[in-house]
Amino acid sequence: MKRSKYFLKTLKNVSSQEKIASARLLKQAGFIEESAAGRFYFLPAGQRVQQKIMQVVKEEMDQAGAQEMVSPILHPLELWKETNRTNTAGFELMKVTDRRDADFALGGTAEEMFVDLVRRYKISYRDLPFNLYQFSPKFRDELRARGGLLRVREFIMKDAYSFHRDEEDFKVEYRKMSDVYTKIFNRLGLETTIVESDNGYIGGEYCHEFIVDSEIGESRYFKSTKGYAAHEDVARFKPDDKNLSEDMLELKEVDAPRGTTMQDGVNFHKMPLWQQIKDVMFVDDRGRYILAVIRGDYDVNETKLKHLVKAITLRPATNEEIREKLFSEPGFISPVGIKNKLEAGVELLVVADSSLRTIKNAYGGSNKKNLDLFNINIDRDFKADIEGDIALAAAGYEAPDGGILEEKRGIEVGNIFQLGYHYSDKMRGAVYTDKDGTEKPFYMGCYGLGIGRTMAAIVEVWHDDKGMIWPESVAPFSVNLISLGENEQAEKVYNYLLENGVEVIFDDRDEASAGEKFADSDLVGCPYRVVISRKSLEKGGYEISKRNSGEQKIVSHGELLKQLYE
Amino acid sequence: MKRSKYFLKTLKNVSSQEKIASARLLKQAGFIEESAAGRFYFLPAGQRVQQKIMQVVKEEMDQAGAQEMVSPILHPLELWKETNRTNTAGFELMKVTDRRDADFALGGTAEEMFVDLVRRYKISYRDLPFNLYQFSPKFRDELRARGGLLRVREFIMKDAYSFHRDEEDFKVEYRKMSDVYTKIFNRLGLETTIVESDNGYIGGEYCHEFIVDSEIGESRYFKSTKGYAAHEDVARFKPDDKNLSEDMLELKEVDAPRGTTMQDGVNFHKMPLWQQIKDVMFVDDRGRYILAVIRGDYDVNETKLKHLVKAITLRPATNEEIREKLFSEPGFISPVGIKNKLEAGVELLVVADSSLRTIKNAYGGSNKKNLDLFNINIDRDFKADIEGDIALAAAGYEAPDGGILEEKRGIEVGNIFQLGYHYSDKMRGAVYTDKDGTEKPFYMGCYGLGIGRTMAAIVEVWHDDKGMIWPESVAPFSVNLISLGENEQAEKVYNYLLENGVEVIFDDRDEASAGEKFADSDLVGCPYRVVISRKSLEKGGYEISKRNSGEQKIVSHGELLKQLYE
Repeated sequence: MKRSKYFLKTLKNVSSQEKIASARLLKQAGFIEESAAGRFYFLPAGQRVQQKIMQVVKEEMDQAGAQEMVSPILHPLELWKETNRTNTAGFELMKVTDRRDADFALGGTAEEMFVDLVRRYKISYRDLPFNLYQFSPKFRDELRARGGLLRVREFIMKDAYSFHRDEEDFKVEYRKMSDVYTKIFNRLGLETTIVESDNGYIGGEYCHEFIVDSEIGESRYFKSTKGYAAHEDVARFKPDDKNLSEDMLELKEVDAPRGTTMQDGVNFHKMPLWQQIKDVMFVDDRGRYILAVIRGDYDVNETKLKHLVKAITLRPATNEEIREKLFSEPGFISPVGIKNKLEAGVELLVVADSSLRTIKNAYGGSNKKNLDLFNINIDRDFKADIEGDIALAAAGYEAPDGGILEEKRGIEVGNIFQLGYHYSDKMRGAVYTDKDGTEKPFYMGCYGLGIGRTMAAIVEVWHDDKGMIWPESVAPFSVNLISLGENEQAEKVYNYLLENGVEVIFDDRDEASAGEKFADSDLVGCPYRVVISRKSLEKGGYEISKRNSGEQKIVSHGELLKQLYE
Repeated sequence: MKRSKYFLKTLKNVSSQEKIASARLLKQAGFIEESAAGRFYFLPAGQRVQQKIMQVVKEEMDQAGAQEMVSPILHPLELWKETNRTNTAGFELMKVTDRRDADFALGGTAEEMFVDLVRRYKISYRDLPFNLYQFSPKFRDELRARGGLLRVREFIMKDAYSFHRDEEDFKVEYRKMSDVYTKIFNRLGLETTIVESDNGYIGGEYCHEFIVDSEIGESRYFKSTKGYAAHEDVARFKPDDKNLSEDMLELKEVDAPRGTTMQDGVNFHKMPLWQQIKDVMFVDDRGRYILAVIRGDYDVNETKLKHLVKAITLRPATNEEIREKLFSEPGFISPVGIKNKLEAGVELLVVADSSLRTIKNAYGGSNKKNLDLFNINIDRDFKADIEGDIALAAAGYEAPDGGILEEKRGIEVGNIFQLGYHYSDKMRGAVYTDKDGTEKPFYMGCYGLGIGRTMAAIVEVWHDDKGMIWPESVAPFSVNLISLGENEQAEKVYNYLLENGVEVIFDDRDEASAGEKFADSDLVGCPYRVVISRKSLEKGGYEISKRNSGEQKIVSHGELLKQLYE
């Protein structure tokens, strides 16, 4: 491609307000341009990169036996009603009505569409498993678009849906897809961490995000020095044992004219925070009161708590509710005896974090103002309705694998998760015929990968202050050929490279200075720059330099191809 | 791909109600499936075909120097307002509002989007011309979806927009794109006729449709035996000379107590239809009266008439309007003297068809009931405000190239047309800087190609009563390999073909009979079928047959590849 004919308009000045490198550089290099906020044009060079990313994804998906197809973009809204997702998709759905008053959702994800397709056919156990995927535009009515391609309202997603006889069969595909994703991102020049994540309303343990570490990413997770990685919502850790060697002492009530915070308790009693009991009262979507009890130096992880009590939403109880419904006292709540007196009709669930097993003789409130209890011990002094992990992880804690948790930030470029029977249960007829002739619902999995965000992540990882540094696998061109007053010879080299299958952009612009050509070359970031100038010809050839290392040398015409392929 | 693992669900029975072969066969073969009416899934085999079509289109567009990019699917509605197209796009636009109350159109075509993009950059005359294209989903809120992929509400279109300094430069690109389209369709196994078409509100002579002849197509056009082809809306013809050798006779009024139709005139006066003058009164969108005058044996082509008088819409005048505004008489309207008496404020335009130059001494109404005029001659007895071609072509007429017009039907698979200054005039800042430093609007062209409809057209042309017959260039697989109880040998051949880059689907299903495998093979329509059976092995090899010719023979293992590549 000759630069003089190519629609690649690099900009001299792009607002330095844009702190996110990928957003700034992709725009400045003329790869993308924003239409309405969060909706982007991919210009020819940007589209080349996008297509190369898709090609890598396609090759690896096909190699793994997945099959590409494509579904309509407008989804009949009745399908989303069938699964009750019109308002609970986890993102804002856009809706549109046609001239015949039929309602549609603009595809955000496509579980319903794929299930609706598959259930139209007679599927036998022999047909299973299969994994169907598509590259298709997705729409999210995000409140805020941000950071160029990082958070947008419209983007191409590779979404895949696998159909299985049962969970065992699904697990095989899940592991395969996990490997496929790792391979895809490696080919794209990205190192990813596979991070355990929250599967939201679906639940289950098979849910992982692929995260590229980056300071500007929106995903926060913890990573163990020994390998364990989990999203902050689900990260587990091992609470350290405290005073377990102590004997249990007698429960006693003490005067405690203190404030209502944990620190007030520490200050007043001059005892360690970890020995105090933290009591947090929530109300769930069904109106149940949930008392979360945890060691004083830990915080409650609401996502974990929600899953444990199977609630959809949680909110803090108000002071009035605590006093009038539970006859307790804000700042002095205690699991001890709280169930003895409740307003009629009130349901209260006491949920104890496992960390309470690491301490003895704890102190804390008594459900009465300015009175505390000493020597509280679980089982002896109170019983939990549910006991489990509801603790929020933090940097420095011990990971489940024995390493130490570090806090990380990154860009989520892909996610894989089980759907289980969620959709096949809700959608009538989503069944296969088993060996014994009975109809059974599909067990399903789902595998997403955002193309544009992956492109942004590549730039975040691969850039310097001069511009982008594309990995060979996705570079818009391999070679940026620059002629400095030697257009005739450069033209020959250009044709020679084309004939040999090298993707080359030839900066043949007469009106651009050498400085402009060099700056553009660095900005656009093709892996190789080849300069043909009088000076280089005098030295016996062309000056070839690598964008990633800066390594530079003169090569003869005969050596050129070898250099590019090495 | 092994058939046992492939999501290709051929159906035994598809409603024979579906008269359109492509709709029936694509569904029956499991290539497509309808979601809501006019919105289709492309299943894996169908998607392979769709992608191959796109690849051919891309290769030829790129070869011609066009550059692929992609625009957002949601277009800011304000852009469509800028060009006044929200209600006049020529198709029904779908609209959607986001949570922040921003209005968008779901892309139907993308002129505004491409102009809006280009005008953001500083474009110099040196950058011109360029041709930007995309493959992107398009939405049309059609009242009726029809015929599988023939008329749908959602489809992938390759749409291209070229930007030029002037009309001369545009013409070069236009001719190039015309050649590119012919080449594309040839590669796809389609013969197309390039048909002059109506450019609607844009006007101008550069507007052609590419039509594949087919009885089930919706496009009607005329084709000359010598090559000329034009849509019925714009088709021209040479009116034959009638009584031009006669002398002009004196105009006279005669009693004519006749009915109001043309045939009534013929019957009453016992004179030929062609000698009668046909007078049709319209009212245009600006309220102007338009009297179309034409030879009696021809009909008025309203599209031609609209363009000639630069009207957006036309409707027939009512009897009341004819009497009260024009003081004429329905069935007896005449251009002779009609302007002598008009209601105040009435504007009347007399438009004469050129065919009036082929007759002399015509007869017709007198603007008074039951009175006709004899020996009407244009120029002498009335003057036309505009004279031109407003005649409707018909089969058997002489074409402009001297051939005879035939009536044709076909499927429009592509269209190319000038946009001229239409969009650059309406959209502020759509300019380039010319050599002399002045800013000038772009001269533009537009080139559309419907991928799904092209796929349907291929099937319409290439099928028989057993199924589809894919041309090699777009076949989902080259070879359908069938094992009849010889799975081990077939597996070897399968791997051998794969290793040699042959796209092969291997029907390894144990549960399917030979008859089912053969029927599926014919239905799916891969160019080659290779059968491995005990019988074929005894004869020394495999039975290979060509789907298009039915030609069949036994080839040895060593000859197989050669046969496929020949």
